[in-house]
Amino acid sequence: MYLQDYHPGYAVDLEPITVDLDEVITFGRRYDPQPFHIDPDAAAEGPFGGIIASGWQTCAMMMRVLVDGFLSPKSSLGAPGVDEVRWLAPVRPADELRARVTVLDTRVSKSKPDRGILRTAIEVRNQDDVVVLSLNATTMVRCRPDEGVNP
Amino acid sequence: MYLQDYHPGYAVDLEPITVDLDEVITFGRRYDPQPFHIDPDAAAEGPFGGIIASGWQTCAMMMRVLVDGFLSPKSSLGAPGVDEVRWLAPVRPADELRARVTVLDTRVSKSKPDRGILRTAIEVRNQDDVVVLSLNATTMVRCRPDEGVNP
Repeated sequence: MYLQDYHPGYAVDLEPITVDLDEVITFGRRYDPQPFHIDPDAAAEGPFGGIIASGWQTCAMMMRVLVDGFLSPKSSLGAPGVDEVRWLAPVRPADELRARVTVLDTRVSKSKPDRGILRTAIEVRNQDDVVVLSLNATTMVRCRPDEGVNP
Repeated sequence: MYLQDYHPGYAVDLEPITVDLDEVITFGRRYDPQPFHIDPDAAAEGPFGGIIASGWQTCAMMMRVLVDGFLSPKSSLGAPGVDEVRWLAPVRPADELRARVTVLDTRVSKSKPDRGILRTAIEVRNQDDVVVLSLNATTMVRCRPDEGVNP
């Protein structure tokens, strides 16, 4: 997949993600050691009534299925940023998440015309069809080599 | 620290973060397995001239020092979202990062007046004083109990 292959409106349902309790705690201990991410007893008494995944872990799990099922190692050049990241509902151990990515638009770079910007909207839903995460992402993607501009 | 303690303009320089190569690769393999995050040889030939950390890991490392040095386990109720996440420069193994968080404003919730919204701007710089990450975060924070509204 090169920049030209990502047409506005093109959407992909990515592989399901199963949320694992041990991974939630491991991630939380290293990166987000708030009680509701790392301590089952404290979390049970806390604002979410149990352990929930760090929002950053939810983003990271989303990224994994995006890399596996949407981006291409030959063309992806990394992401300058994301916007409007919304953690809309708690993500709990044993949740089954499904992410859907939709192409918003693409634009060839003026300064480096061998690449361009891919803008996408991503929604992650749980097994109850509740949206738990939404965001808009911007990714740098190579243009198809044989459609590049003159050297 | 309760909501009332976060005054607009209040800023904290958080603990330094040293980026570890093994952790970059471990994180990349699990959550963002693009060649420039996981494969030193491929990364050397790739767009960044070497391994770089996943942007999501940079966010997660930022979150860790934010939890350790800015949020309070008694008052933090999680984050509804973040905006304008910008990965402005590559983060490489052995980089020494420093995050600074600045309070933008706070607002007591109308529907749940025992808590409110804390908005912050966060910048992460490397050892060369280059900003590698910036974002604006929204966090739900409890009001100080003895200043709560009538029951």
